[in-house]
Amino acid sequence: MTFSGVIPPVVVPLNDDFTVDFPSYTRVLEHLIAGGVHGLFVLGSTSEVVFHDEAARRAIIEHTVRVVNGRARILAGVIDPTTDRVIAHARAAKAIGVDAVVVTAPFYTRTSQPEILDHFRYVKAAVDLPVVAYDIPVCVHVKLDRAGVVALAREGTIAGLKDSSGDDGNFRMALLDLADRPDIFLMTGSEIVVDSALAAGAHGVVPGLGNVDPHGYVRLWDAARRGDWAAARAEQERLCRLFEIVFVGLPRTSSGAAGVGGFKTAMRRLGIIATNVMARPQRTLDEAEAARIDPILRAAGLLG
Amino acid sequence: MTFSGVIPPVVVPLNDDFTVDFPSYTRVLEHLIAGGVHGLFVLGSTSEVVFHDEAARRAIIEHTVRVVNGRARILAGVIDPTTDRVIAHARAAKAIGVDAVVVTAPFYTRTSQPEILDHFRYVKAAVDLPVVAYDIPVCVHVKLDRAGVVALAREGTIAGLKDSSGDDGNFRMALLDLADRPDIFLMTGSEIVVDSALAAGAHGVVPGLGNVDPHGYVRLWDAARRGDWAAARAEQERLCRLFEIVFVGLPRTSSGAAGVGGFKTAMRRLGIIATNVMARPQRTLDEAEAARIDPILRAAGLLG
Amino acid sequence: MTFSGVIPPVVVPLNDDFTVDFPSYTRVLEHLIAGGVHGLFVLGSTSEVVFHDEAARRAIIEHTVRVVNGRARILAGVIDPTTDRVIAHARAAKAIGVDAVVVTAPFYTRTSQPEILDHFRYVKAAVDLPVVAYDIPVCVHVKLDRAGVVALAREGTIAGLKDSSGDDGNFRMALLDLADRPDIFLMTGSEIVVDSALAAGAHGVVPGLGNVDPHGYVRLWDAARRGDWAAARAEQERLCRLFEIVFVGLPRTSSGAAGVGGFKTAMRRLGIIATNVMARPQRTLDEAEAARIDPILRAAGLLG
Amino acid sequence: MTFSGVIPPVVVPLNDDFTVDFPSYTRVLEHLIAGGVHGLFVLGSTSEVVFHDEAARRAIIEHTVRVVNGRARILAGVIDPTTDRVIAHARAAKAIGVDAVVVTAPFYTRTSQPEILDHFRYVKAAVDLPVVAYDIPVCVHVKLDRAGVVALAREGTIAGLKDSSGDDGNFRMALLDLADRPDIFLMTGSEIVVDSALAAGAHGVVPGLGNVDPHGYVRLWDAARRGDWAAARAEQERLCRLFEIVFVGLPRTSSGAAGVGGFKTAMRRLGIIATNVMARPQRTLDEAEAARIDPILRAAGLLG
Repeated sequence: MTFSGVIPPVVVPLNDDFTVDFPSYTRVLEHLIAGGVHGLFVLGSTSEVVFHDEAARRAIIEHTVRVVNGRARILAGVIDPTTDRVIAHARAAKAIGVDAVVVTAPFYTRTSQPEILDHFRYVKAAVDLPVVAYDIPVCVHVKLDRAGVVALAREGTIAGLKDSSGDDGNFRMALLDLADRPDIFLMTGSEIVVDSALAAGAHGVVPGLGNVDPHGYVRLWDAARRGDWAAARAEQERLCRLFEIVFVGLPRTSSGAAGVGGFKTAMRRLGIIATNVMARPQRTLDEAEAARIDPILRAAGLLG
Repeated sequence: MTFSGVIPPVVVPLNDDFTVDFPSYTRVLEHLIAGGVHGLFVLGSTSEVVFHDEAARRAIIEHTVRVVNGRARILAGVIDPTTDRVIAHARAAKAIGVDAVVVTAPFYTRTSQPEILDHFRYVKAAVDLPVVAYDIPVCVHVKLDRAGVVALAREGTIAGLKDSSGDDGNFRMALLDLADRPDIFLMTGSEIVVDSALAAGAHGVVPGLGNVDPHGYVRLWDAARRGDWAAARAEQERLCRLFEIVFVGLPRTSSGAAGVGGFKTAMRRLGIIATNVMARPQRTLDEAEAARIDPILRAAGLLG
Repeated sequence: MTFSGVIPPVVVPLNDDFTVDFPSYTRVLEHLIAGGVHGLFVLGSTSEVVFHDEAARRAIIEHTVRVVNGRARILAGVIDPTTDRVIAHARAAKAIGVDAVVVTAPFYTRTSQPEILDHFRYVKAAVDLPVVAYDIPVCVHVKLDRAGVVALAREGTIAGLKDSSGDDGNFRMALLDLADRPDIFLMTGSEIVVDSALAAGAHGVVPGLGNVDPHGYVRLWDAARRGDWAAARAEQERLCRLFEIVFVGLPRTSSGAAGVGGFKTAMRRLGIIATNVMARPQRTLDEAEAARIDPILRAAGLLG
Repeated sequence: MTFSGVIPPVVVPLNDDFTVDFPSYTRVLEHLIAGGVHGLFVLGSTSEVVFHDEAARRAIIEHTVRVVNGRARILAGVIDPTTDRVIAHARAAKAIGVDAVVVTAPFYTRTSQPEILDHFRYVKAAVDLPVVAYDIPVCVHVKLDRAGVVALAREGTIAGLKDSSGDDGNFRMALLDLADRPDIFLMTGSEIVVDSALAAGAHGVVPGLGNVDPHGYVRLWDAARRGDWAAARAEQERLCRLFEIVFVGLPRTSSGAAGVGGFKTAMRRLGIIATNVMARPQRTLDEAEAARIDPILRAAGLLG
């Protein structure tokens, strides 16, 4: 089993009391599937995964599996600080029926690159599902070493990589390192250099902004597949301009809250979800900020 | 209620299968109480807190409360990435009967200083127990701002601070900022500048190395209390030399694993615990490394 | 006057006594011009600029101007920690006859973004030459803010940007920000995502690796100009594999010494320069390391 | 020859045109000597060293030597990015007649710890003067490794250390490492934990704030020498409160400009220097900020 195409990390809408708003969440999933995406990444950073406890995570995955009902591949983030807690999440996700699990390096604790490699090996040994390595130094404060990623791939520990490191040069080198292994699924977490990543051979893209405009990323993917790089670039540039919504909340909110908060605020405006509430202690975009998102949506052709 | 004195963060020994070795853990607690410590900080970084799931954390706190049986104050770390998960840990800890909870800034997620202050406020509002702020940027990758700590103290949100930031100048300034508030409990997490911190007015010390030599830190505390700074310095310097055990595992293990691993290996050598096993994926000190710890223990007078 | 195309940062070969080896340097310049490059960036990081004092810098620029003799545009790095020292270098470079100066943010001293913008303004006000901003946080430890770069461009302070930040997403956004200003020259300092940068609209490329294989980067540029992205990608991938020479010295040398040292060692092997000596205190690649560079050159088709 | 006591890094006042205001500078030197300081560190970060070119540095050192005229030991910073430029500064300083040179790790260029050690060795081999290692990661972005400092001291390369790293635990360990070598001069660059450093055995202190209140630091030193730690602490705490002047400029200026700018503004208010001008592109404290310094000076007893 491999994965490819547009696989957005799914926004999880919240009620005012910070519980999951499942009716809105259903609409998010239907919106993405209607947009033509090829897979769904639930419980990544965009899903505010580390704000959800075990019960909430289980409920989110169960709901996803039920609503999606085979219409898209489901990758589930199993993100917590250390190995055995990650394994517990992975076992729960497997029991519910996801297609792969997505694993970061340990965090809070300070681990070395050899310990990090062992972390992925322990998870793989414990759970018989494809494991995707999630390189996200902005959250875990360590970068996955390129040689380590390649070793994990070649030994069968990981089935793929989601690169959210922002180090596109390193990702390019990794694509070449594994050019003989098309079964190893290498995807970029970027929203704004997707055409570049696809032109360089990336197998997929996991854009948080895809929650707002899945059609756009699918058009970009389709243009890349048929080698129409001018169309891909034009679509990417429109999406880059749309990406400005992630900066609107700054500096009143943190960058984390501004990013997902920008997505949520846009999705509320587009009628997909009911609130733009962010999990505590993050700050929710206020109405003045929300008003600054409208013209960006309009310029991107998403709002009349 | 306030806290003062020597309050070690308690090492949690493990069996070879990574479960908690409770008989050894009982011996750790008895060793510390026999050493004269004034309190115990369970489920901090030294306890490998983020490696333990909710059930294990509950079992550790319950065991601690039962064994200690009122002989020392108990502070419990309630450490996980985000607010509501921290609140859940705090409620569980309160229900079991700890005296205070110890809370870090959020991690994995990127939060701003105002969001971090709100985090402490939400926890305090949810759990009627003293809240101690735990400043540990090496783990959470953000420093608690001095002005924010002072504001939280003055408004009644936090009852104290455990400063493991290594920024002793900033801690000194915070001591002065709150010099009129002796009820706010300010303690250093350092092992090696304890005499300095006490001379500057710190109310307590939370030394991981206190697991290996509680008597030493209690002698240091007593010397400081009676103003015998020469004796305090001599004791501190002996403990500084003992502190070299935390570097023995480097660079084969991570710094995290080397530090607590050094404590565990020394405690095994001293007959307090049965193994020096570290939680996965950390590397355990090997026998060659263990052998290098013996002469350090001997030089510190802990081994015949 | 604007700039575009392949503008390598020029390697400055040294004698065994660390003085500049001018006969070898002449060969480097002729090698680059014969390779078809469109400009030359002298006294950047690849030229080991901060190792050269004022007299050496002047001699290097004078030699460059004399040898090049109008056959390529010359950009000169004027890199030192603070504004007035940069201005002095810029005046000297202008007097000798370069076409533009390249300026980093201040370093050693800690400056804020507004102070950094003023730095560029002071330089521009003092020296009537095009000023190119050089974004190189790995050296100066501060990233040029995107909004600041755009402001400097629109107000006429800077004529262009050399982006060596590795933050290709941010560079993409800057390209869009200034899409209406084709006179502002935006170039990437990357060696390994050049096809991506050109596809996204970058006006030029400043690849250190171009010292070793200028023809390759010129072929890549030409392919991009005619829209042959498959050819551009193939050339880029060959150059990516050649780029492995920058890692050969690690970890015996620093990353700085390994990078330029890899270029120098390859250029020595190709008969362009006489030594691979690095300026003190950097370590020079040894013969065992040099031997590991040969097969990389061979695989890239540069060595028979 | 060794060094000890209070050795302030000397503020260099500027005219409005950014040239050195030598009459004011003379008053700074006389103010410090009248304050009882034991030595002077010229051309460190507090002197805005990297803003001064070779000619200005020479003029500053010459003026210092002439005015001081043997009344205090003079250490001269020889701070520039790379080895041979540092050697050139060191030779010039020696020729003028300073007592020691103060050397940082290389900067801008990325060097490894072994290359950094070689840097100090090359300087020492080139200049027959005591070399003091200056550990200032906030400026050079690398910390001097404790083992490396000890090795340099024991092999005779360095005569001392100025520790401005803020890592007081590491400094404490270094004091112990070299406890058998009282000839190696270990001084803290801190303003606010000086009593702690002296109690732990530091040989001296290099406080920027000593420009504002040299008498205070000399009283602190004298109290420490006679073992009156209560008096030392009281003096230190008064100076900690005075230290708040370094934050007044924030965030309008950078932290660098706020710190030295705070000193200059206070010294102008005390009639020692004529302007509070900071070298370009740093921002000078404005009059509103200057007004906020007055009450701090008053509370510290420096202003009637």
